[in-house]
Formats: sequence, structure tokens, C-alpha cells
Amino acid sequence: MNIPNTDLPRVVIIGGGFGGITLTGKLLKEKVQTVLIDRNNFHTFQPLLYQVSTSGLEPDSIAYPFRKITRSSKNAFFRMTEVSSIDPETNTVHTPIGDLVFDYLVIATGSKTNFFGNTSIEENGMWMKTIPQALNIRSLILENLEQAEITSDPAHRKALLTFILVGAGPTGVELSGAIAELKNQIVTHDYPHIDPEEMEIHLLEGLGRVLPPMSEKASENAHKFLKELGVQVHLNTMVESYDGLLVKTNTDRTFRTSTFIWSAGVTGAPVKGLKATALVEKANRYEVNVFNQINGYENIFAIGDIALMATADYPRGHPMVAQPAIQQGKNLAKNIKRLIKGEKLTPFDYRDKGSMATIGRNRAVVDMGKLKFGGFFAWFIWMFIHLWFLIGFRNRLVTFLNWVYNYINYDKAARLIIRPFKGRKIQMEDKKA
Amino acid sequence: MNIPNTDLPRVVIIGGGFGGITLTGKLLKEKVQTVLIDRNNFHTFQPLLYQVSTSGLEPDSIAYPFRKITRSSKNAFFRMTEVSSIDPETNTVHTPIGDLVFDYLVIATGSKTNFFGNTSIEENGMWMKTIPQALNIRSLILENLEQAEITSDPAHRKALLTFILVGAGPTGVELSGAIAELKNQIVTHDYPHIDPEEMEIHLLEGLGRVLPPMSEKASENAHKFLKELGVQVHLNTMVESYDGLLVKTNTDRTFRTSTFIWSAGVTGAPVKGLKATALVEKANRYEVNVFNQINGYENIFAIGDIALMATADYPRGHPMVAQPAIQQGKNLAKNIKRLIKGEKLTPFDYRDKGSMATIGRNRAVVDMGKLKFGGFFAWFIWMFIHLWFLIGFRNRLVTFLNWVYNYINYDKAARLIIRPFKGRKIQMEDKKA
Repeated sequence: MNIPNTDLPRVVIIGGGFGGITLTGKLLKEKVQTVLIDRNNFHTFQPLLYQVSTSGLEPDSIAYPFRKITRSSKNAFFRMTEVSSIDPETNTVHTPIGDLVFDYLVIATGSKTNFFGNTSIEENGMWMKTIPQALNIRSLILENLEQAEITSDPAHRKALLTFILVGAGPTGVELSGAIAELKNQIVTHDYPHIDPEEMEIHLLEGLGRVLPPMSEKASENAHKFLKELGVQVHLNTMVESYDGLLVKTNTDRTFRTSTFIWSAGVTGAPVKGLKATALVEKANRYEVNVFNQINGYENIFAIGDIALMATADYPRGHPMVAQPAIQQGKNLAKNIKRLIKGEKLTPFDYRDKGSMATIGRNRAVVDMGKLKFGGFFAWFIWMFIHLWFLIGFRNRLVTFLNWVYNYINYDKAARLIIRPFKGRKIQMEDKKA
Repeated sequence: MNIPNTDLPRVVIIGGGFGGITLTGKLLKEKVQTVLIDRNNFHTFQPLLYQVSTSGLEPDSIAYPFRKITRSSKNAFFRMTEVSSIDPETNTVHTPIGDLVFDYLVIATGSKTNFFGNTSIEENGMWMKTIPQALNIRSLILENLEQAEITSDPAHRKALLTFILVGAGPTGVELSGAIAELKNQIVTHDYPHIDPEEMEIHLLEGLGRVLPPMSEKASENAHKFLKELGVQVHLNTMVESYDGLLVKTNTDRTFRTSTFIWSAGVTGAPVKGLKATALVEKANRYEVNVFNQINGYENIFAIGDIALMATADYPRGHPMVAQPAIQQGKNLAKNIKRLIKGEKLTPFDYRDKGSMATIGRNRAVVDMGKLKFGGFFAWFIWMFIHLWFLIGFRNRLVTFLNWVYNYINYDKAARLIIRPFKGRKIQMEDKKA
């Protein structure tokens, strides 16, 4: 893999999500050699992926090349590849581009979409965990509108103009809000043959309220905001199957749709090679102690979504969002330094900084400790925090500028169908890219 | 195709390049029904495509959704499709989404890459006429760098770090200059295992000087600028074949490269259905009179690259660049109005506004009538003119901002490899997307 052998202890980090890049960044100036491995050459700011899907932002606004991080230290390296397996006996990581021996290994591979074994959804639905997937959703939405514009068959038209989102967590809520804005701001003006009232956005949630991980107040507010935007929310509704057109649910209600977006759950994305007992089976996450050491290993760690640290406050692990990953990355950087020096490790202490979701312009909900509020001020806070956490000055500036422009002009400027013109069928097959 | 039948004369425009959108824009307020047909849902500002290829800009900066143009008139329509053929007997356009009868037809289909029958180049090379192609070139360049970083075999390494551009017209010159900047600004910092001196950029030109359509002075300056940037220029050098690795030329010189970009010529992209005599065979362009009427037809026109109007000044037709297309679009808009009113048509009168090309930061060459100059001021003019001609305030702002950022920081921020991780081979097969 062409990584130089030095006297420095080697820390290999698998995955450049929030946890992986935080840790990499904190190790840049330390006396360790850091090797970050990711299948992409850039970090993805996942909280804003839904804006890429809905033509609000381009990928470069929310992506950050890993080499812009590793370039600042001669002891930091990036390798674009996948990890085939780990051999903990020999402290080796196997990849298609070669093997790498580590002193410390950090698994930060995050999570993947959970279909709960439902193959009809996996085969026919779309989901949004990566930039290519987000761009495919964008193209599909725009293609459906182009198609609806020239379709007179009422049943076909209805399927093209019906958007089904499953799972009312932050992703489902924010995405359905943004699609509703596309309807109100773009479809109204751009498609003379589509009556905006024809376009239906349905958000289906298995539990009894939207944003189940947030407060009751946030759920209420978000539900109200979604309704105001024209999103139809169906609670206590579980999807049983989707055959590419027909959606069957556990209620009498069925839908016919060309656009079925699944955001109803995630599960850990572990790597091959560790012993079975390291994994909490149902969650598919590695069981870690308070130092993020994986159960049964001393020099192998897991942070972020893939780590399950059972604590008194979080007996089933921390929420699978950015904050625990970032904080664990920071704490682990300190602990790796301590390990090298033979010092005592510091246990991880999670500080819940709250959670938030936005639902179209001027509307968001925020839970911050005892403070729970929704509306314009929450939306303002939401924007500020997201800009703040975006990586790099340029991304903040470009994103801010796009937001200002889109806000003033009621526009979504990036509505480009960018993939080869091969006809609809092949594009559908290609959708999981 | 779901276009309403009205009392207004229907103008069908095939192709939304510079000519097509200029004409569409000028007809918006007239008493005609306008139908613009394009295979993409956006206009591409081709002069800046090379910056998309080299990570300087994202597609949304240089693309403009057609529906943002047609939305402002209830008599203007856009259809995303290809034209299968034209039937001039019945004044009908055939497309996969249905037929359309026209009163006036304007063919503005532009040009396509000309391989001069060399299949080895068509099969193994890359070229840059569309946004997907530009994005594929970007990904290939970045993948080659990632690959070179981990490759120790000297021959393989050399092929990965050798960039061959064929054709020293504006595209070849600007693209090779931008790749040289990637080398000087990015490779130097981002890839610890690549010595920038290993990276070679070769620009091959069959004629005796670079930028053959421009003045001798521009050629001289451009040649000097390319040399300063580290681009190796090979004049009087024609490529005979490229098998995916080996480039053979008409001289003793051969090259081994993973990146072969062909920009050595374009040819018209005509549509099926008009009589053979309408086409000037060698150029593949429609022969038009001074009113842009295609030879043998009264109500069928061609504008831009696809039109060959032989005049005293331009016996072999106008140059295949933006200005003739824009000016013909404007003139034809007026003539269509005159035709409808039964007035006399105005012949097209081309005003050469000059030509220019940029070669990296601070360097450009400009020919404007008798004024011919190069260097910093030319580069400033180049930037100003390109911003001016970009469509839409937002695109200008985002492009300007990116340029300022990249200029100050010696950066190319959009260096994202965005396509599915399928391994190199499939990505190569996919490259012509």
C-alpha cells in the first residue's frame, strides 16, 4: 500500500465520516503515523444530503477532499480503497490495494440502510446515504416531472406525481419538506401541464409520531409544519412491500408511485475478521467499553455509529448521529496519545448538545436540553449550526450563498438531470449506484 | 407530446446550445408558440467545461435549466427528448415521446467530436462535449493520481502520470493549462508519494502552431505560457492510434498514457430526414442561405455550428464557436417575426467580436480586431467576458466566488471522484457516459 515504515506508532482509521475525520484531524500534530482509509476521496456532510437530492446544493458544497486534511502533516496518509477484512492476530488490514499492519486500528465505518430483510424494498426502492445516491434521487424526481408533463394516462400520471417517503426521522422529515418546496416553488412555475395539486407527498411512519427520537413538542411542531407545506403524514403505518409501483402497508391504504424513498432505519456496517462476540448482533454494531475499545481487543477501537457503548443513560448505545461520533473521535485521539505514553485512559462522557430538524423555509424544530422550540428562530439556529459544522471555509461560503440565493428567489438552482441519456429504464436500474 | 394546438404559428427549435437558447429567449414575448427540444434539461456553457473537468467548478455553475427560460411565457414549452427524424413533407418532427407538427423548424443541434474515422481513438480515448464527459475526465484524472500514489512499478506509474491532450485549439490549450495547474497547486501538496516532476502533460497539435484559428501573436504567447506552466507542446504531430495505453504518432515519438483526451476536431451533428443535398458532406453541416434557411427549404432553418453559411469573408462557413450561433439566433428571431408578417427578411451579418483563450492563472491571449495581446490584462478580460456571457445571475456569482477562492488559495475545491466505486476497469468502460 506504499505507506512508509517509520518508528512512529501507526494508527489506521477505517472510514472518513464525522468520527474518522475528527480523529484524523486531532492526530495530525501528534507523534503517530495516521492512515485514513475510505472508499471515496471525500468526506460527506450527511445532514445536508437531502438538499443535494432536492436541487438545493451541489455535491462540492457538502463534500471535502480527504487529502485537504492529510496534506498538512507528513505523517498522515489517505488511501482510497475498501477494507476486505481485518486480521487481529497479526494486526493487519487487508484491502484490494494491499495489506497494512497497524499498531492501533479504529473502525469508523458508520452505518448503512436497514431494510429489515425486506427484499422488495431493497430491490425497488431508493435511499440516501451517499452523494451518488442523492444525485440519483434528484435526477429521478426531475425525470418524473418531465415525464408527467407529457403523460395523459391518469394512472401513470398519478404514479409519477406521487412521492412516498418511509420513515419520519430527520432524513424523511427534511426530505419530504424539501420535496414539498420543490412542488410549491418550482413545479408551480416550470411545468405548465402539471397542476401542483396533482403532486402528492406522503410521509409514512411506523410509530405514533414524526421525529420519534425528539421531544413530543418537536414532533407536534414538525407535524404541523409538514401539514402546512402540504406533506401528508401517515402515522402507525408500516410498509409491507414495494414492487416498483405498488406500495402495500399494514393499513388499508395502498399507494402507486414511481418514487419510493426508504429512510426507515440504519444498521451498523461492520468489517470482516473480528470475532463474532465483538458484535452486538441485532444492532450490527461493535460492543465497546468506555474507552471505545472493542470487546475482546486492546488496540482495536470503534467510534461513531458502528460503536455501541452501553451506558446508564444510553443502555442501547448512543444515538447514531454526528455528535457521538465527533465526541468519541476527540476523546479517542487523547486516549491514543495516553496509550502511547502508558498513561491512564479517560472514559468517554457524552454531552448531548441537542437535536434539530428543518421543514422548509422559516421552519425548524430544536431540542436543546430543556429548551424545546420551533419556528423561525429554530430555523435560524438550524442554519447557523449547519454552516458552523460544515468542513472548510469555502463549503460554508458556497452553501451560505446558495441558501441566500434560493431563499430570496424561491429557487432551487441545481435542478440538473446529470446522467447519461439512456432512457428511463436503464436509469432506474442504475439508481443504486 | 402534449403541446397545445393554438392559433399561433409554432416554432420548433432542436437543441438548446448558444443558438437555441438565444432564439428561444428572443421569441418569448412574440406571438408564436415556441417548443425547445433538448436531450438534457439544461443548457451547458461549453467554454467553461474544462474547469469542470479539472475540479475548478461544479456543473451547476455552468448549467442552466431550460425551464427557467420557458417558464416566463405561457407560449413557450420545453421537451427533454431526442429527435429521431424530421419529415419535411408533412412538417413533422418525430421523437420517442411523440410527433410534433411545426410551422417553422430551427435545427440548432451543434457539433460533435470528430474522430476522422479513427476507431482506436473513439474506442479508447476521452473527449469533452458534455457535462457527464467532463465529470468523467475529472474522476479519471483524480483516480490516476490516487493509483500513482500507491504504484511502485515505474512503467505503470509513468503511464498514470502522463497526460496526453490532442489538438491545440482553445479546448486543448485551456484544458492542458488547467491540468498543469492541478499539478503545480494540488499534486505538490496532496500526494506525498508523487514527485510533481514525474507528472507530464503533453499537448499534441497537427499544425505548426498552437491555437491555429487565432493570430500568430496569440499562438506565440500561448505557446510561451504553456511552456512556463510545464506543458510540453509537440507541433506538427498527428496521432495515428491509441490502444488504451500506447499512443502512436506520425513522428518517432510515442507515449504511454492512461489519460488520452481528444480535442482535435468537431463535425456537425445533423438530424435524419432532410434531403442529402441539404448537407455539405465533408463538414456535415447544413448549407444555409443568408437568412439561415436550409438549402431547398423555406420554413426549415439551421443556426450555429450545424449551419454552413458560405460568405465572401467565410467561404467555408463561420467558425464553430459561440458568437455566430448567438448572432444567428438573434437575427433569425427577427426574421421569423418578419416571415409571419410577410415582411422582407434581413440577411445575417456576422460581427467578429474576437477570440480568446486562457492558460492558467494570470495568463490569457486575446485577439480583438487589430488588438492582439496576452498576459495579465488579457486574463482579466477573459474572466470578465466569460462571467458576462454566463447565463443567470446565480451562475455568475457562484463562478466568480469559486474563481476568487481558487485564486487566493491556489486551490481546486471540487476534486471529488463522484461515481460508484466499482473498480477501475468498469469506470474506464463507463467513461463515455
